[in-house]
Amino acid sequence: MSQSRKLGLAVAQMGPVHLADERRAVVKRLVEMLKEAKARNAKFVVYPELALTTFFPRYWMTEAAAVERFFEKSMPNADVEPLFTAAREAGIGFYLGYAEYTREGRCFNTAIIVDETGKIVAKYRKTHLPGHADHKIAAPFQHLEKKFFAVGDTGYPVIETLGTKMGMCLCNDRRWPETWRAMSLQGAELGVLGYNTPSQNIHWPEPVHLRMHTHLITLQASAYQNAMWIAAAAKCGYEDGYHMIGGSVIVAPSGEIAAQSSTEDDEVITANIDLSLGDTFREHVFNFAKHRRPEHYQLIVERVGAGDPLPHDPDQFN
Amino acid sequence: MSQSRKLGLAVAQMGPVHLADERRAVVKRLVEMLKEAKARNAKFVVYPELALTTFFPRYWMTEAAAVERFFEKSMPNADVEPLFTAAREAGIGFYLGYAEYTREGRCFNTAIIVDETGKIVAKYRKTHLPGHADHKIAAPFQHLEKKFFAVGDTGYPVIETLGTKMGMCLCNDRRWPETWRAMSLQGAELGVLGYNTPSQNIHWPEPVHLRMHTHLITLQASAYQNAMWIAAAAKCGYEDGYHMIGGSVIVAPSGEIAAQSSTEDDEVITANIDLSLGDTFREHVFNFAKHRRPEHYQLIVERVGAGDPLPHDPDQFN
Repeated sequence: MSQSRKLGLAVAQMGPVHLADERRAVVKRLVEMLKEAKARNAKFVVYPELALTTFFPRYWMTEAAAVERFFEKSMPNADVEPLFTAAREAGIGFYLGYAEYTREGRCFNTAIIVDETGKIVAKYRKTHLPGHADHKIAAPFQHLEKKFFAVGDTGYPVIETLGTKMGMCLCNDRRWPETWRAMSLQGAELGVLGYNTPSQNIHWPEPVHLRMHTHLITLQASAYQNAMWIAAAAKCGYEDGYHMIGGSVIVAPSGEIAAQSSTEDDEVITANIDLSLGDTFREHVFNFAKHRRPEHYQLIVERVGAGDPLPHDPDQFN
Repeated sequence: MSQSRKLGLAVAQMGPVHLADERRAVVKRLVEMLKEAKARNAKFVVYPELALTTFFPRYWMTEAAAVERFFEKSMPNADVEPLFTAAREAGIGFYLGYAEYTREGRCFNTAIIVDETGKIVAKYRKTHLPGHADHKIAAPFQHLEKKFFAVGDTGYPVIETLGTKMGMCLCNDRRWPETWRAMSLQGAELGVLGYNTPSQNIHWPEPVHLRMHTHLITLQASAYQNAMWIAAAAKCGYEDGYHMIGGSVIVAPSGEIAAQSSTEDDEVITANIDLSLGDTFREHVFNFAKHRRPEHYQLIVERVGAGDPLPHDPDQFN
């Protein structure tokens, strides 16, 4: 087994951000949790997706109205600057999700990684946008990510920072195994993400407990299958009456949960993770160079949707 | 939600097959379990990997000695014919794993699907061979799949049989997300596999409980992520003193376990599975055509082992 390489890691779960909450008040909550993370000897903090506002894709409105109220035109901006300052002063890096409005007027569901000097060292724009673009009048709420955001153009960045290689994604991306493979094939040792996951599925009467169940099993299996640590931060609880799951976790490359939130409110969870545990899995069961067989994986890039079975004649194999 | 489409499904877990056990006696056990599956109204039975012999890759020997004793030169052969006959008479299809010696003298870790008329309709040769090819003298036992078997050349067949589309794999394949994607991209609704999983990891002191844990979370996450049912059959218990895990399961596309073995012996588990549950997941969260983004999955086929992070400059995304 490899020699221990420790990293103090924190996940800062957020309780609800209501429509009436101002960004400055939200950022104050983020700074408070940064201080707790620092006191618990963390060097990196993971915040949720769309951390600065309510999960606005649940509301029908024009794109212009959404941009005006919920998107960031620059980063850091005056409202968010106190978080950058506090993190730099504490010598802590962080991951933060927000709605990005670009110079060219494009809209993305975005996350950044900021290093311990306050520099933005990575930007990720969400690849797998769930939900719909049309107005579902009969639904109890909307899930308009396909209306308000363009599909991300960054791929899955993996960056070297804080003595590790860190990959990033957002929310629904975590359910797609391709997400994690794109990171582990770049040597990622730690994957970080934020999420806003409504408890109710508006598309079919999915039992509510499955939302937590599928969240946890996909993170656990993905951490194991990619020999990575995973840290996932929820925004959760009732935002103006609409419930989202908590379940923020730090998952080990063994697929075991090393830390998990126990509230649906602002809550910091931490673990002093040993990055070398991933090395052990990478050397043996998931020694990719020794075991992977891309010649049998071609359909993954050749097809978008599912198609017919490939022709198969068992008599050809005798 | 889609209209219910039921299939009576059985997994026939096997207890140990010792070195002294003859194939005819083993096949008798398989036939016994087939009868129980029939009595419980199953239409398809999943048997383990290398179901006809002990898990011989744990023993160091020459290839010739292994072929002589543990490989099948034809299928069905006289020893296995009683299973084919019993299944045909019962109108039941089955999946069976065995060591295959081909006409050209090649060796594969193979599984077949036999339809309810007794016809071999699919053959799969294992892609992801775990273990090693050298003699590890200091190890308590060997794991010589890389010595005794060639890497499979069939890809992942998906075939239409018994009113469903069925994909197949073997043992270690289940830990690789590419396996399941290769099936679901061909429209598989049910994935079947057998396995022999030693409780002890000879490569590093992995806690023994993790072998069951990672087995279950990967099957659960893979069923969910691919909107498939999965049926997995162990050969388990102490084979001549070497322990392998049980944990045979039928997993739903929700990632929930619908049936699980409770012994480490011959044991039939069944579920009357509703294939339409997969349709529901395929229509919504895992509507591949709507959500997948192969332009960001290229590394999966471009790289075998992990490499350096791709260049990333966050300032290019403004």
